[in-house]
Amino acid sequence: MGAAPPPGEFEIIALFTRALPIGGRGVVVGPGDDAAVLRPAPGEDLVATVDAVVEGVHFDARSTPADVGWKALAVNLSDLAAMGARPLAALVALGLPPDPPLATLRGLARGLGACAREHGLPVVGGNVTRSPALSVTVTALGAVPEGRAVLRSGARPGDLVAVTGTLGDAALGLAPGAPAALARRQRRPTPRVRAGLALAGLVRAAVDVSDGFVQDLGHLCRASGVGALVAAADLPLSPAYRRAARRLPDPWAPALAGGEDYELVVAFAPARLHAVQAAAARARTPLTVVGRFVRGGAIRVLGPDGEPVAVPPGHDHLRAGGSRASDRAGARLGSGRRAR
Amino acid sequence: MGAAPPPGEFEIIALFTRALPIGGRGVVVGPGDDAAVLRPAPGEDLVATVDAVVEGVHFDARSTPADVGWKALAVNLSDLAAMGARPLAALVALGLPPDPPLATLRGLARGLGACAREHGLPVVGGNVTRSPALSVTVTALGAVPEGRAVLRSGARPGDLVAVTGTLGDAALGLAPGAPAALARRQRRPTPRVRAGLALAGLVRAAVDVSDGFVQDLGHLCRASGVGALVAAADLPLSPAYRRAARRLPDPWAPALAGGEDYELVVAFAPARLHAVQAAAARARTPLTVVGRFVRGGAIRVLGPDGEPVAVPPGHDHLRAGGSRASDRAGARLGSGRRAR
Repeated sequence: MGAAPPPGEFEIIALFTRALPIGGRGVVVGPGDDAAVLRPAPGEDLVATVDAVVEGVHFDARSTPADVGWKALAVNLSDLAAMGARPLAALVALGLPPDPPLATLRGLARGLGACAREHGLPVVGGNVTRSPALSVTVTALGAVPEGRAVLRSGARPGDLVAVTGTLGDAALGLAPGAPAALARRQRRPTPRVRAGLALAGLVRAAVDVSDGFVQDLGHLCRASGVGALVAAADLPLSPAYRRAARRLPDPWAPALAGGEDYELVVAFAPARLHAVQAAAARARTPLTVVGRFVRGGAIRVLGPDGEPVAVPPGHDHLRAGGSRASDRAGARLGSGRRAR
Repeated sequence: MGAAPPPGEFEIIALFTRALPIGGRGVVVGPGDDAAVLRPAPGEDLVATVDAVVEGVHFDARSTPADVGWKALAVNLSDLAAMGARPLAALVALGLPPDPPLATLRGLARGLGACAREHGLPVVGGNVTRSPALSVTVTALGAVPEGRAVLRSGARPGDLVAVTGTLGDAALGLAPGAPAALARRQRRPTPRVRAGLALAGLVRAAVDVSDGFVQDLGHLCRASGVGALVAAADLPLSPAYRRAARRLPDPWAPALAGGEDYELVVAFAPARLHAVQAAAARARTPLTVVGRFVRGGAIRVLGPDGEPVAVPPGHDHLRAGGSRASDRAGARLGSGRRAR
């Protein structure tokens, strides 16, 4: 049996339009016009973010097309979650190598569709173009009550540092032969949308963990003009992480610097602790206090006996060679400005 | 003198953040947080579109980096114009090959910045990632009074077909040694934002010319459930086009099917003709009536003596080989659905 001819432009568009949720509350005009038309609720601000995943840079042959589709949406939803926004809609720009196999397209559409449906996110527009490598660039739009977006800049000395879920699993999931639980955290991250919404009125600042816990905490600290003191022994680690980390020379490294956890790091006043814990519980999201914000700009991580723990250096997404999947985060335009 | 080392992630982000307008009315939070925060005016709908330009597909060595930056924004502004939307903000996702030359980055930023400033469009966020080919994916956000977006679907039989500016210049501008006026239309298209706003309350439907006049008119016809009758002799052609077309076997072809004009095709009731002409004049945008919408789904183009004019076939952006710059339009997700 000969292979079917690769699908053309119109078949590809039809395939994605069928596979993705394209309408819903707030969608006035979905795909098919010059642009989509959306209607946030009265009194809402709009939240907008864009992120790309590129073959050979952010994923390799071990990720299925469905994984790639899922992750491309999930990493953007994670940014909305960090702003405390409810997801409104997404636009998906696909770069496709010549004659993409139908199975690849179907897988991409399935993964995008699964993540979109899981989070009630209509895909209201997009673009398909040829490209030397497969890429998926997603713009996610969300909404927050006017003036209520959770920024990176609100933390104050004395506030607690807390993090959702567990850290470091995604980084360990990159290793060949990684346990399924860790590999899944790498390939199918769970954006903390519910937790972001539940915590929005209670926390003073938030950031999502894409580059690595300490690096992203550093973004928050710089934006807020504070430092932080973190207790390594309090870092939330999964059972699979603890087992895998026994073999590592530096067992804290993946949790501190690994990246791609897509957990939320939040800052809040100690008096809010119980309210924050209750909100996280209502969102069915584990939340662990791991430290405290302090004056000054430094982040210090202390081990179980109070000794300083070294943190592997941050990562330059463009200079690094290879195809470390944790490069996916790219670099947000402007996010590198050092506020201090 | 040795060349300076290529800039790293943070230098690149800083370079773009400095070169681009990043704030303004409606921007609550610009670049530097997990996402941007925007505030459309009360009672406005949000309009959203995404489009990508990729090296080797949508531009080649004849385009300067500044041209590429300009065009990446302009093609998205053209979509906003076709919806009658005022530009609100853009997000820019850059795919950069390893170690991009500083001159390339500066040129890109200059072109993006020039187009953004020309149209009062803040760039509120973005992403930088490695990629095998240079690519610029832009999401443009606009606003329209609630329920007032100009769609493709409003044309009725009897409505007039009109088009802004001139057609075919961009296609002719692709030829090696093309006159400067034509090459400029190809490399630095002018999105018809002012005209789109001025015409918004007067026209029943609009589409922008990215794929080619007849093909885009066809999108509008299918969405509206009408056909069209176009008089080739009435097509607005520039003096440079008329000179260049003397040497062509089919002098209408670039105007009918060339693509990348980024003019607007609009539909309106004949009774509105004077109001439409006055609005276009106020927007300092030439507007020419070229035909009429009719019942049925066919588009017929008639020559000066009433003879049918053949229209070159439409274009499959993915199957076509080579690097025709007019492939840039890609294919909008869902826009290929045939409504009839």
